[in-house]
Amino acid sequence: MAPRNSWIKFLTKDAVQGFTDHVGLVPVSMAPGKFVTRVKLQKHHLQQDGFVHAGLIATLADHTAGYASYTLVPSDRRILTIEYKINFLKPAAGDFIECRAQVLKPGRQILVAESEVFAISGKTEYLAAKALLTMAAVPKAKLKKP
Amino acid sequence: MAPRNSWIKFLTKDAVQGFTDHVGLVPVSMAPGKFVTRVKLQKHHLQQDGFVHAGLIATLADHTAGYASYTLVPSDRRILTIEYKINFLKPAAGDFIECRAQVLKPGRQILVAESEVFAISGKTEYLAAKALLTMAAVPKAKLKKP
Amino acid sequence: MAPRNSWIKFLTKDAVQGFTDHVGLVPVSMAPGKFVTRVKLQKHHLQQDGFVHAGLIATLADHTAGYASYTLVPSDRRILTIEYKINFLKPAAGDFIECRAQVLKPGRQILVAESEVFAISGKTEYLAAKALLTMAAVPKAKLKKP
Amino acid sequence: MAPRNSWIKFLTKDAVQGFTDHVGLVPVSMAPGKFVTRVKLQKHHLQQDGFVHAGLIATLADHTAGYASYTLVPSDRRILTIEYKINFLKPAAGDFIECRAQVLKPGRQILVAESEVFAISGKTEYLAAKALLTMAAVPKAKLKKP
Repeated sequence: MAPRNSWIKFLTKDAVQGFTDHVGLVPVSMAPGKFVTRVKLQKHHLQQDGFVHAGLIATLADHTAGYASYTLVPSDRRILTIEYKINFLKPAAGDFIECRAQVLKPGRQILVAESEVFAISGKTEYLAAKALLTMAAVPKAKLKKP
Repeated sequence: MAPRNSWIKFLTKDAVQGFTDHVGLVPVSMAPGKFVTRVKLQKHHLQQDGFVHAGLIATLADHTAGYASYTLVPSDRRILTIEYKINFLKPAAGDFIECRAQVLKPGRQILVAESEVFAISGKTEYLAAKALLTMAAVPKAKLKKP
Repeated sequence: MAPRNSWIKFLTKDAVQGFTDHVGLVPVSMAPGKFVTRVKLQKHHLQQDGFVHAGLIATLADHTAGYASYTLVPSDRRILTIEYKINFLKPAAGDFIECRAQVLKPGRQILVAESEVFAISGKTEYLAAKALLTMAAVPKAKLKKP
Repeated sequence: MAPRNSWIKFLTKDAVQGFTDHVGLVPVSMAPGKFVTRVKLQKHHLQQDGFVHAGLIATLADHTAGYASYTLVPSDRRILTIEYKINFLKPAAGDFIECRAQVLKPGRQILVAESEVFAISGKTEYLAAKALLTMAAVPKAKLKKP
């Protein structure tokens, strides 16, 4: 359907700008309450020991859960992250990292989501990090411009 | 003292490479169990609504606490983040963000630290985020190369 | 002042009922955005290795932050815990545990607080746990009876 | 097999003493890396608004994940909670709360687990809380008596 396609188009574009553009985040797929993103790994994604920097993994976990939440709220709302917690289960390395996020509990004002970040090399993957996140759905009108 | 200066030099260089170089992180000061870093804000640090991206704030919170921890462990150890939790108290905007991290509980294998991230404009600042982090001090020899 | 005293009286009574009564929680002091509680340690507060059970420590961290938040919201609101994260810094043992909570960020709907739980023996104490918590201020009328 | 039965017997007994006995926790089932517990709800489990106290829910989330971890470590180790984060998705009420925990990442020294706490009334249930937890497997000999 046209509206749906335009919504996907909007989300895809909205999700990649500023910082997420700078770090190379790419949306992969979306569905109501779900969102998947990826980063093709390059040298500038690594930390001092050659693994993917936890900050990039967290950026994906956060941003992807934000857009999973965004698929569920009225179009006059924007998503802000209230807080999250993330466990790094295994140092990440490989060709890509991919984040799969889903909303655990929808809500008008507060949504709770979880994100899993996988490290992918060729056809193998492993779970590198898992996050539990709380999101606020804020009326656009209330979001003062910075 | 020479050893101390060389240690500061080493830390300062070690802390900025790969991802942290890419995002513009700069060390500001350090002391045993403490570390401070900064990012001069630019367009590519923002998210879709014009605020600093939570992923950048989290990157600073994590990395700065990692190096605060690193000041306290033997030189044959490296720091990996086990997990953290971060609360975003207020959308961040301004000239800089600055992260001040300190170790709450040192340890041979596990350290607990906290980070506060401030948004700074001219001479005013406000607390934009606070994180509580658990770090592992891993023997260098055990850190398999990725 | 009378209203203030009656508010303290109300808070003190409201804070100790059901589960908190069962575990022996006692309010110690309060101020705007702050609350302190204690438990006198007994055998039924311990876990399998003789330390204070993390569940009791977390109960104090949560409940005390809840009432620190409660001091700041209109009287037609009630506080529900959205989420928290707690780090156990050192196994707790001694005569008492005491929790000191303060609100980091007030808000009409969402408040962020932190709690520190100390283990106290005679005149010595140490920080046993630290928590970062997100609270919701919910209009009483919206809280459906269970 | 006898050893397995005696292990189950030991775990079941070890899991219920002191605080967990006081709050009425009962083990329901276990398997390698998994543990399930329950509490039959009574008045002394509730908070000021008639819902199950978050402290009890957290106690189950923590303790059950601890024993899920305990099923995977050598018998000369004990489990201590390093930290956890818990989201309360919906106020809990009903006949029982039941916690189902599983280890996400085993390890010799550090294990990561997750717990889901359900509120159960008759044949219906809903997810009331979800937690992500980090556990330490500590050699018994190193656990100084309190």
